[in-house]
Amino acid sequence: MRVVLVASRNPLNIGAAARAMSNFGFRCLRVVNPYAPAFRDARSAVGASELLAQAEEYESVAEAVADCSLVVGTTAVRTRILQQPLYRLEQGGRLIRKGLVSGRVALLFGSERVGLSNDQLSHCHWLMRIPTREGHISMNLGQAVAVCLYELIRDAKVTKFVTKEARATGVEVERITELLTDVLCESGYPGPASSNELKVRRLVRRMGLSPLDAEVWQGIVRQMLWKMRSEKEPPE
Amino acid sequence: MRVVLVASRNPLNIGAAARAMSNFGFRCLRVVNPYAPAFRDARSAVGASELLAQAEEYESVAEAVADCSLVVGTTAVRTRILQQPLYRLEQGGRLIRKGLVSGRVALLFGSERVGLSNDQLSHCHWLMRIPTREGHISMNLGQAVAVCLYELIRDAKVTKFVTKEARATGVEVERITELLTDVLCESGYPGPASSNELKVRRLVRRMGLSPLDAEVWQGIVRQMLWKMRSEKEPPE
Repeated sequence: MRVVLVASRNPLNIGAAARAMSNFGFRCLRVVNPYAPAFRDARSAVGASELLAQAEEYESVAEAVADCSLVVGTTAVRTRILQQPLYRLEQGGRLIRKGLVSGRVALLFGSERVGLSNDQLSHCHWLMRIPTREGHISMNLGQAVAVCLYELIRDAKVTKFVTKEARATGVEVERITELLTDVLCESGYPGPASSNELKVRRLVRRMGLSPLDAEVWQGIVRQMLWKMRSEKEPPE
Repeated sequence: MRVVLVASRNPLNIGAAARAMSNFGFRCLRVVNPYAPAFRDARSAVGASELLAQAEEYESVAEAVADCSLVVGTTAVRTRILQQPLYRLEQGGRLIRKGLVSGRVALLFGSERVGLSNDQLSHCHWLMRIPTREGHISMNLGQAVAVCLYELIRDAKVTKFVTKEARATGVEVERITELLTDVLCESGYPGPASSNELKVRRLVRRMGLSPLDAEVWQGIVRQMLWKMRSEKEPPE
C-alpha cells in the first residue's frame, strides 16, 4: 500500500498524514511535488517519524504510481461529472483490500486547496469519496487520510462479537437480595416484608451485576445492616 | 449526540474536531475546562464554524454529561487494567448507535497529553479504543474525533452493493473485434488470419469495455484502418 500526497502545501497536514499511517500500520509514504518548504518543515518537525524521513519524493503522479497495479484517487467532488467510477469509502475500502491481495495499491490525496486535477485523476482506475454531508463535503487532509486508512484496517468481524460481560451467579444475586431485604426491614421501609422481598429480588436482578460488583454490593449492604443493628443495641 | 472535549490544549485540535463534526453531520460540541487561550483562539480562527461558536463550556465532566443517558470515553490505554468494559471502535460504534435510539450519548475525548483521568473515566458507562497498532497507539486528537465520527455515520449496507458498471453489448464488442482483426491483417501481423481473429476476439472481451469506451475504441481502430488503407493507395 502506498499513500501518495500530491502537491500538499501544509507541513502539519503532511505530518498528520504520516502519523495516521503509523497509527494504522502503513509504512510507505510518497509525495509528489510537495510545496518544498512545507515538506522540509514536516520532515524536520520535532517528533517527525521515521516514516516521514523515508518518504519518497516524485515529480509526477505517473512516476509515483509506476509500480502499482491499482491506483485510487480520493475526491470530495460529487456533482461534477467524473470520468471514472466513484465509490463511497465503505465500498472502495473493500475493493482496495481485494487489490492488495494481488499487487501494490496507490491511494492518492490531492492538494488542500484544489484536490486532484483532472490530469492527476486520469492516472486512477477509479475514485473514492468519504461520505461527508452535502453541506460540508471537504475534509482536512490529515483527517481524510486517517479516516481512509481506518476503513482499510477496520475489522468488520468484531462488530458481531460484542462479548457479554460475565454476570454474577444466582447464589450471589440472591445473597444481595436477602441482605437488602433485611436492611429494608431494619430501616422500617413501608410495606409488608414478603412483597418487599419480591420487589427487591426483581430490582437486584435488573442491575445485571458482574461477579465483582456483586461482591462490592454485598459488602456495602452487609455494612449498612451491621451499622443499623449495632445502633439498635442498648448502650452498655 | 454530544462530542465532549476534556481539557484540550491545542486550538488546532479543537478546530479540527469541530470540522470533522461538521463534515459528518454532528452539531453539539461541548468543552470541559479547555486551556482558555486555546479555546479562544480556536473560536476566533478564520473559518471557525458556527458549531465552534455555539460550543458549550463546562467546568466538569459531570455537568457536561448531565443530560446524557450513555457516556462513552475514548482511550488509547490497552495495557493498564481498566475498571470498565473496553470495546474496539467497530463494536463501540454499534452500541452508540443503539444508545442514540433511546437517549443522548456523550462521547468523551481526553487531553492531548494524558487522555482522560481515572476520575473523568469514572463517569463513563464503558470505554472505546480506536484499533491502532501496538507500536503507535496514541492518535492525534482531531484525527481521533474524525475516525470515531466516521464509524458512527458509516453505512455498512453500501459495501454490499458495489454496482457493476454497464458493459458494452456483444454487437459493439464484436464490431471492435472485426475492425481490429482487419487492422492486424493490413499491418501484416504474423500468423493465420483465422487464428488471429480468435485471439483478438478473446483479447477484446477481456477488456471488459463500457458502452462509452467501446465507442471510443471503435473510433480509434477505424481511424487506424483508414490511415493504413489510404496510405496503401497509389498516389494520384
